[in-house]
Amino acid sequence: MAPDAAADDLLERMERISFQGRNLATARRIWEKMLGDDCTIFLGMAGALSAGGLRLIVAYLIAHRYIDCLVSTGANLYHDLHETRGRHHYIGSPREDDAALQAESIDRVYDTYAKEDEFCDNDEWIAAFALTLERRPYTTREFLYKLGEYLWQQTGQEGILTAAYRANVPIFCPAIADSSIGMGLSQARPRAASAGLIDVIGDIVESANLVIRHPRTASVVLGGGTPKNFINQASVQAEFYDDRIGGHRYALQIVTDVPHFGGASGSSLEEARSWGKLATDAEQVTVHADATIALPLLVSALAESARDTVAGRKPLAFELNGPTMAVNGRPFPSARFEAR
Amino acid sequence: MAPDAAADDLLERMERISFQGRNLATARRIWEKMLGDDCTIFLGMAGALSAGGLRLIVAYLIAHRYIDCLVSTGANLYHDLHETRGRHHYIGSPREDDAALQAESIDRVYDTYAKEDEFCDNDEWIAAFALTLERRPYTTREFLYKLGEYLWQQTGQEGILTAAYRANVPIFCPAIADSSIGMGLSQARPRAASAGLIDVIGDIVESANLVIRHPRTASVVLGGGTPKNFINQASVQAEFYDDRIGGHRYALQIVTDVPHFGGASGSSLEEARSWGKLATDAEQVTVHADATIALPLLVSALAESARDTVAGRKPLAFELNGPTMAVNGRPFPSARFEAR
Amino acid sequence: MAPDAAADDLLERMERISFQGRNLATARRIWEKMLGDDCTIFLGMAGALSAGGLRLIVAYLIAHRYIDCLVSTGANLYHDLHETRGRHHYIGSPREDDAALQAESIDRVYDTYAKEDEFCDNDEWIAAFALTLERRPYTTREFLYKLGEYLWQQTGQEGILTAAYRANVPIFCPAIADSSIGMGLSQARPRAASAGLIDVIGDIVESANLVIRHPRTASVVLGGGTPKNFINQASVQAEFYDDRIGGHRYALQIVTDVPHFGGASGSSLEEARSWGKLATDAEQVTVHADATIALPLLVSALAESARDTVAGRKPLAFELNGPTMAVNGRPFPSARFEAR
Amino acid sequence: MAPDAAADDLLERMERISFQGRNLATARRIWEKMLGDDCTIFLGMAGALSAGGLRLIVAYLIAHRYIDCLVSTGANLYHDLHETRGRHHYIGSPREDDAALQAESIDRVYDTYAKEDEFCDNDEWIAAFALTLERRPYTTREFLYKLGEYLWQQTGQEGILTAAYRANVPIFCPAIADSSIGMGLSQARPRAASAGLIDVIGDIVESANLVIRHPRTASVVLGGGTPKNFINQASVQAEFYDDRIGGHRYALQIVTDVPHFGGASGSSLEEARSWGKLATDAEQVTVHADATIALPLLVSALAESARDTVAGRKPLAFELNGPTMAVNGRPFPSARFEAR
Repeated sequence: MAPDAAADDLLERMERISFQGRNLATARRIWEKMLGDDCTIFLGMAGALSAGGLRLIVAYLIAHRYIDCLVSTGANLYHDLHETRGRHHYIGSPREDDAALQAESIDRVYDTYAKEDEFCDNDEWIAAFALTLERRPYTTREFLYKLGEYLWQQTGQEGILTAAYRANVPIFCPAIADSSIGMGLSQARPRAASAGLIDVIGDIVESANLVIRHPRTASVVLGGGTPKNFINQASVQAEFYDDRIGGHRYALQIVTDVPHFGGASGSSLEEARSWGKLATDAEQVTVHADATIALPLLVSALAESARDTVAGRKPLAFELNGPTMAVNGRPFPSARFEAR
Repeated sequence: MAPDAAADDLLERMERISFQGRNLATARRIWEKMLGDDCTIFLGMAGALSAGGLRLIVAYLIAHRYIDCLVSTGANLYHDLHETRGRHHYIGSPREDDAALQAESIDRVYDTYAKEDEFCDNDEWIAAFALTLERRPYTTREFLYKLGEYLWQQTGQEGILTAAYRANVPIFCPAIADSSIGMGLSQARPRAASAGLIDVIGDIVESANLVIRHPRTASVVLGGGTPKNFINQASVQAEFYDDRIGGHRYALQIVTDVPHFGGASGSSLEEARSWGKLATDAEQVTVHADATIALPLLVSALAESARDTVAGRKPLAFELNGPTMAVNGRPFPSARFEAR
Repeated sequence: MAPDAAADDLLERMERISFQGRNLATARRIWEKMLGDDCTIFLGMAGALSAGGLRLIVAYLIAHRYIDCLVSTGANLYHDLHETRGRHHYIGSPREDDAALQAESIDRVYDTYAKEDEFCDNDEWIAAFALTLERRPYTTREFLYKLGEYLWQQTGQEGILTAAYRANVPIFCPAIADSSIGMGLSQARPRAASAGLIDVIGDIVESANLVIRHPRTASVVLGGGTPKNFINQASVQAEFYDDRIGGHRYALQIVTDVPHFGGASGSSLEEARSWGKLATDAEQVTVHADATIALPLLVSALAESARDTVAGRKPLAFELNGPTMAVNGRPFPSARFEAR
Repeated sequence: MAPDAAADDLLERMERISFQGRNLATARRIWEKMLGDDCTIFLGMAGALSAGGLRLIVAYLIAHRYIDCLVSTGANLYHDLHETRGRHHYIGSPREDDAALQAESIDRVYDTYAKEDEFCDNDEWIAAFALTLERRPYTTREFLYKLGEYLWQQTGQEGILTAAYRANVPIFCPAIADSSIGMGLSQARPRAASAGLIDVIGDIVESANLVIRHPRTASVVLGGGTPKNFINQASVQAEFYDDRIGGHRYALQIVTDVPHFGGASGSSLEEARSWGKLATDAEQVTVHADATIALPLLVSALAESARDTVAGRKPLAFELNGPTMAVNGRPFPSARFEAR
């Protein structure tokens, strides 16, 4: 026991204890290895992490290239946009009278509040932005890059979308239709029937091509959901077109869900092996913890111990500004999987 | 204690006990009320319920109009298609060696196995089907109707997709890109660059119009995930265009996730009230249970006690075969929210 | 899907599905095998099952000798005594104002209420009973037999304690000091300094001797806690004195806790093997479910399908009325482990 | 995001986020208030925390009087004794073949191993110690003080039992019969029929008297189980004899269990209010987290921010060496509750 130990030291000591403490300590070491081993690192992000106050940690991971590609739920990007636009989430209580909150137009996310009026304003802002785009399908990768760009121009503020724009880190949002970003997009339709057309199937092609182009991949998953599966799916789809892929080399997940009900969110990384989502000899760890506790500690320790590794890292350079993305100067083929 | 009690009797007795047993008993009564109260009943379905063996229960609910609209993950529809096409899921073990399974091309979902070759065959089948469609955006509602039609024509077998086709029950799949149906669609692209274009934003417009057209709604949610939020989002989006909506009148959810980590899957129905997703005076219940235990018991009891109510029900009649859906003979407006 | 299926039929169908539904179906088959295989069947009972409305199911299991020995928390026995004495638990809400409940002297167990005055009356009743006993240590086995006897004489009502008394089924309560039965006993002390002396270490000797006397054992655990460990400890302690024991031949547990936090309540039955608590080839299953849903369905189906097996069963005959218990007419040695 | 932030700083930032991160930050502030407010602070400890590597943190809390009374499961004290005696717990895997472990006499606690031979040696050591005691009932409080004393004399090593002995901090172990300490005690019986007599009902009297003597109390609970309830029971029992008690003034619990299955381990602190276990206006927080992650961070931050408060604290002085304990020089009455 050391009073006021630093994150690095805390996690180092936790390598010698048990249960989820040890797993969290192991997660740091596995992430270090990802960074040192020429991997494309995918970060999946589900659960109310942005509303919950972790968006600047994710922005940090993007800006400093602790990760190379973000896959997120729409809600996390929306709540990020909300704060980047200068709005707030408020400290509330999980036991408030919800009918009273509704009467005051306050939306509750467990112990956190937001103002419905500000959400409506965001939706309109997104609709207006969508109307500035061309009348053609956009993958979420292209759309979110443009959205990040516009947001940066308008606000100059740090956040997930703006960090990804500035660092040229691609974001995929496979379930964008199930979010307020989707709602904003839908509100463009009455004004232009062909506005807000999002090509989520195109995202599948691009994400698989990302793996085919650089088959050494790693997966960091926070909270399961669609991002977890989408990251694994990219690996499986790539394998379908190129049997040298072989699954992620490293994987870590911080989840609160459990395997025994059969859902994908809680599924084990062992199970992922049977599908070839994970290499047979991949180093992997599951941490059963709320990310609001685990992530600040993990990233703070990692930022210390992996400082040099990150400084020496030569991550893939992406070009994201157009229908066809490019990696290290070479564009992807249009609308098809890249053969090697 | 009665040996071999029937489902109806078991649940009736469970009304007088506590905890999740009582909640399950209450769920039956609330569903009965939905059926007797001229509501549009949405069913949300996440988690590996089709692979887990519950697809024919869901097909029964559709065919007999215990529900009016299904919102599902792609995986549940894909695993349904898999079995409707005559393939199987196999009884396995959660403790098998996953590297060995991979070597034999067996994919594991907790304690259940499937053959990867058969999955690859499904993907190709979906890609081939996608190529028969017009080169224009399809909402998932229209696409899945066509898919159900084709599947029925090819197989004549019962299942979720075929039951929904035959009963004209709409299916939305907001996260279709995060599933093997999406992967199948993506495999059409190399053969036709504009094939497999899915308009998930159009789904948002249609689902909100569904609520605007008939504002008395009810929500039955299995397992959280994107379906849970999409059903609530439809209500919120409808409210944005028509302030007489007022949220679901009844809601029940069977979930294994918990509220205190802040994610939407586990969020309480009280919280849903603050957002106006649920009417302030809505009757609601959350059952914390695995649907593989709770659903067979619940539906078996409901099919007994609600038999007459269902027989006397006059559910909405949908027309789903085209870009614009119609309710009771009146088509939705094209690409905009319906004003009342 | 069959409307109003009976429990036996429901569980039979659930053998062919997945996840916890399949596990519950397997639990029925394993319990059948225990009953047919000359085992001493231990039932462990933790969690608020009596307050939650399951006490008459447990009484049924005792009376019909589906089990041979009960290990319980004190609370379950206390809440059983409360109802056997004609008091009630009330249907309440988990979201009531607890300060208001306190002001009205209502004690809450999640969604269930009880009157504090009636609890205080129970405590005094137990204290008065304790004063009628001899001034010597009693194992919980002997004490609870006497308590059941007195309760039956006073009330003539069915319940766990009275059923165990009438069927001569031993009850152990290793954590009796952590319950209102313990509180009641402590209230005898001011009136007689040596009253209420409970020899919980003697329970360890007796429970191990139970296993030594008849080494074929089986374990049914509801909810983990001290009963789960105490049942396993009996097996391990017996093994220490007689290396032919070999652990339980069958084991099933219905728990809501999970293994990955390291606690005994959620620990897996695989882990139990490493300790020798379970035979290496034991048939076992864990059902992750709330007992208020799982137990009524399970016992109702079992009472149907195991009817003949139970009728033909020749369970151990216990004599429990004294400091030394006897099995099939042969008393245990006093204060020592029986050598074989 | 600050690389390598210290614990104090991490938790301070987490006060402004959401969910369990915020709750953990709040837990630190509530513990600070306990320390500054002349409270008797009870610590409850369940789950495999000693085997899991947290025993020296608990020893630190005892030695520096961050707490005043420990209530523990027997297993945590036993695994503490095991390490204090120079034995070890080993880093293992949760997926090892348990039959193979059994064959090598290795006992598994999730991902942690111990040698069965060493456990057997501990049991004998405890039995031998028990035979050195007088032939009369010992409360666990007295027995564990003597055990800590003997352990300190034999080993001179730091640990929970030895720290409590040296700091005169009482330990209660209400479920001692459900642990290997109990097994060790039972092994004294064959050698002396009246050895190992533990008076757990006497513990109830003493723990209530502790509250009556100094009614300002606070509760810190790790992991639920019997310690959680025993601490609350002391408050309720004290109230029965002295209606000025009023429940704990502060309460924090770090648990992984949930309220909605009705068990005491997961029960909410709101519910505790209805019983009067908690003062109506008590400050309280529940942290849903594995203690192996939460406790090192929490205690490290607390040891920094509460340094001065702890230095200025004047905790109760206990005398524990005898059948009757004393507080600040005044002994408790023998075998009865103290009237004020």
